[in-house]
Amino acid sequence: MRILRPHRLGLSLFPPRAHSPKHSLPFLRPFSSTPHRLLLSTELTPALLSSLRASPTRLWNDIHSTAQFGIGNAHGSHPHETGLNRLALTYEDKLARDWFAETTKNLGCKVFVDEIGNQFAVRPGLSSYPAGADGRREVNALSDADVLSVPATFAGSHLDSQPQGGRFDGVLGVCAGIEMLRVLEENWIETVGPVGVVNWTNEEGKRWKRSMMGSGVWADGSKEYLENVWALEDGKHSVKQQLGNHGYMGTVRASVKEGVRMAGHFEVHIEQAKRLESAGEKVAVVSGVQGYKWFTITFTGTEAHAGATPWEDRADPVLWASTAIKGIAKVVKGLGGLATVGCFDVKPGSVNVVAGEVTITLDVRHEGDEELQRIFKQVGFVLGGLKGAMQNDGKQCKVDMKLDFESKAMTFDPIAMSCVEESAKSVTGKEQVPRLVSGAGHDSVNTAKHCPTAMIFVPCKDGVTHNIREWCSEEDCAIGASVLLQSVLRFDQRRQTPGNLQGLSD
Amino acid sequence: MRILRPHRLGLSLFPPRAHSPKHSLPFLRPFSSTPHRLLLSTELTPALLSSLRASPTRLWNDIHSTAQFGIGNAHGSHPHETGLNRLALTYEDKLARDWFAETTKNLGCKVFVDEIGNQFAVRPGLSSYPAGADGRREVNALSDADVLSVPATFAGSHLDSQPQGGRFDGVLGVCAGIEMLRVLEENWIETVGPVGVVNWTNEEGKRWKRSMMGSGVWADGSKEYLENVWALEDGKHSVKQQLGNHGYMGTVRASVKEGVRMAGHFEVHIEQAKRLESAGEKVAVVSGVQGYKWFTITFTGTEAHAGATPWEDRADPVLWASTAIKGIAKVVKGLGGLATVGCFDVKPGSVNVVAGEVTITLDVRHEGDEELQRIFKQVGFVLGGLKGAMQNDGKQCKVDMKLDFESKAMTFDPIAMSCVEESAKSVTGKEQVPRLVSGAGHDSVNTAKHCPTAMIFVPCKDGVTHNIREWCSEEDCAIGASVLLQSVLRFDQRRQTPGNLQGLSD
Repeated sequence: MRILRPHRLGLSLFPPRAHSPKHSLPFLRPFSSTPHRLLLSTELTPALLSSLRASPTRLWNDIHSTAQFGIGNAHGSHPHETGLNRLALTYEDKLARDWFAETTKNLGCKVFVDEIGNQFAVRPGLSSYPAGADGRREVNALSDADVLSVPATFAGSHLDSQPQGGRFDGVLGVCAGIEMLRVLEENWIETVGPVGVVNWTNEEGKRWKRSMMGSGVWADGSKEYLENVWALEDGKHSVKQQLGNHGYMGTVRASVKEGVRMAGHFEVHIEQAKRLESAGEKVAVVSGVQGYKWFTITFTGTEAHAGATPWEDRADPVLWASTAIKGIAKVVKGLGGLATVGCFDVKPGSVNVVAGEVTITLDVRHEGDEELQRIFKQVGFVLGGLKGAMQNDGKQCKVDMKLDFESKAMTFDPIAMSCVEESAKSVTGKEQVPRLVSGAGHDSVNTAKHCPTAMIFVPCKDGVTHNIREWCSEEDCAIGASVLLQSVLRFDQRRQTPGNLQGLSD
Repeated sequence: MRILRPHRLGLSLFPPRAHSPKHSLPFLRPFSSTPHRLLLSTELTPALLSSLRASPTRLWNDIHSTAQFGIGNAHGSHPHETGLNRLALTYEDKLARDWFAETTKNLGCKVFVDEIGNQFAVRPGLSSYPAGADGRREVNALSDADVLSVPATFAGSHLDSQPQGGRFDGVLGVCAGIEMLRVLEENWIETVGPVGVVNWTNEEGKRWKRSMMGSGVWADGSKEYLENVWALEDGKHSVKQQLGNHGYMGTVRASVKEGVRMAGHFEVHIEQAKRLESAGEKVAVVSGVQGYKWFTITFTGTEAHAGATPWEDRADPVLWASTAIKGIAKVVKGLGGLATVGCFDVKPGSVNVVAGEVTITLDVRHEGDEELQRIFKQVGFVLGGLKGAMQNDGKQCKVDMKLDFESKAMTFDPIAMSCVEESAKSVTGKEQVPRLVSGAGHDSVNTAKHCPTAMIFVPCKDGVTHNIREWCSEEDCAIGASVLLQSVLRFDQRRQTPGNLQGLSD
């Protein structure tokens, strides 16, 4: 695909600059018709905006060169064919974070880190400059307060992965945001409001069992919630310790209101299913995200000798958990939801010992919150039934179910979705863009609570994800990034009046 | 219970000696009618032999004082109410071994360690002294070759435990053997053949998945088998490394023929079930041991996102393993056997990831080898059926089943059993002694392949074992030890002619 850029269209008055944090064009004053860069986003004609594209090569290079930070197991012979093992706030994650900060600084951003390690790279817009300022002005000379004075429109996702995860989940969203910055820079485009890229902390929720952790803390904004998350333990370290150990305990408040505010949040992500692939589609507007709940269920029986304990004397939690897993799968499937048992821990875990205790995790999901609540009740009935049957059998059977985390079902903002839809049409040339509900949770669920948010899905080979074989083609990654870029600009165009610039994150 | 000892019966010519490794009584010559100790076992009248008892207090003290080497979690407020956590060849096990060596040396034994760490404490008998030797003689002046020249009758079991095991499994057998030595010493009893106590290495098979490991190596006797076991890994260390690290890599060949030979093997053990308790019985003759097989079964599916992967695209090994576990339990129960899944490992083990691989262990048992073979086949059918059903469903389902270990069903020696039966009758005063098949494997299964072997069961509270709450009363422990002591002496009486002394371990 040929990337059409304004200067290639003969619109550039100057040759494209090398990437540099220095901006030396004269600054006139906020909301003047003459921006300090060449083109104000509001001056982009629909045709011009629709011709803007991400560079497939640059984006592809970022995705794969950063996979060195936590290289995973190989699934093929090509150097790109390995997974990613980059748990949040590990040394590998720190390296990816350092790369993010360095790269976005070189693309004209100021980078802020909040108290939960979220990284916000902000590229000032026309409205970031104080009213009345004039003369030649450098972006880097802006104070932090100036840069944060107006909420930015963010492209965001996460750089952490599952332990045997793939190279695209989260990474694509962050790299596409960086590619957006590159296209803005090379085309000398000035946005009305600031724009930015955010790397959220521990989206995966693997290392500390709190999915979308960083965006969750930011969205809640309270000190209590932050302290609670800081104290989470992974068996060796608390979140707070690891933020400090890797230098990512920021000073900005982790708060939607008192920290980095947002005008909008756009996230491009692999679909993590195969609906797009099956339909031969390249991109989808995500209309919402399933609700989900995470539980820990503990079955307590009686440890006993595997050879000497007859069936009638056994209280075997492995058998109970197996029965429960089958029963739960059946009822949740019947209710149109999803159920996954991802962990199954046996104590003491010896080949010739009937176990004393089994702990499983349960992840249940549904598009509707009411249905999710019904699923929760039905799971309770399955466990209660099992317990009752065992006790009728004269066995000591204890079952505990604890809610670890929940995320309500979410519908995205219509204006943000329309920006994505229009951009997807212009990039693919199609008249219809599919709308899909996301099965997976994303940081966008948290931003959607506070600002216009939308997501873009691109295909993911065979629907395989959270797996070293996770794959999205170079072309599809670039399509997603182009849609992201245009969506952010279209959203920015709607911010042209000063009244639109404030209060969007409240 | 009052312990009647020969000297209390007025039979002692000398006061009982303090425990001492020095024996200074004159030695005449082997097979002479005058032993170097006071009483030759063959001179014990039936009434005298039947009056010999273990000391409940001493035995109880050994059981509990040695529990300091790997103290487990508490299950009550009394200092004795904790479990035992003494995996084979750990530092705690080394301490228990050191205590065993020291204690048995002080009771007139020479202690031998073989290449797999089995400890054999041998108390020379009349026949251990070279023909023609005369004059005053000290037992410790006997050469190793002299001590090993005649196969000994052993009391034996193991000092290692499960990670959350109890204080009695194995420990009772070894401590009862030591108590037997004490009774022989305090009563100045000289046996015809040597007698001894053996502490077998890694009976539990927890740390390295090879149950009855030390006795298995000894019974096999080949260098290949030894090398194979030496190389077993627990994830950090090989058996060979840990033998070396704790100073228990002995120089005696681990071999039934070339190492320490055995005339007989007697083992007292808690029943690990509640048949004795339910029947109100105190002791049983064990007639045999169930056969068993250990398997590792691996289910391979496809790692995928828990929220984004619809049911039809899931290949979830946790669900498969749960189905298999239920199916296996059903068929094995139907065939009159036992089945236990003691380990269940999930990869990658993340709450929101459909697992890619599940590995379970399976322990199946039956009293009959043919039935066990039938169980093995039926388990195969269950797994094959599951695999077929999944593949019909269009899912990539891989199931591997690997045999890790097997132990054939065993029937014990009639003469050794008759010694136990007679002793049990004399200790309990009952006319009938129950015969039970052992559900658990024991080192006696391995010795029974080569020499007359029998086992003694004592009750175990609620049948609970491999559990910190495992319990056997002080009285019951002592009854078992008294039966053991008398059984070994009755067996020794049958060895009075030289012809009986050789070749018993071949």
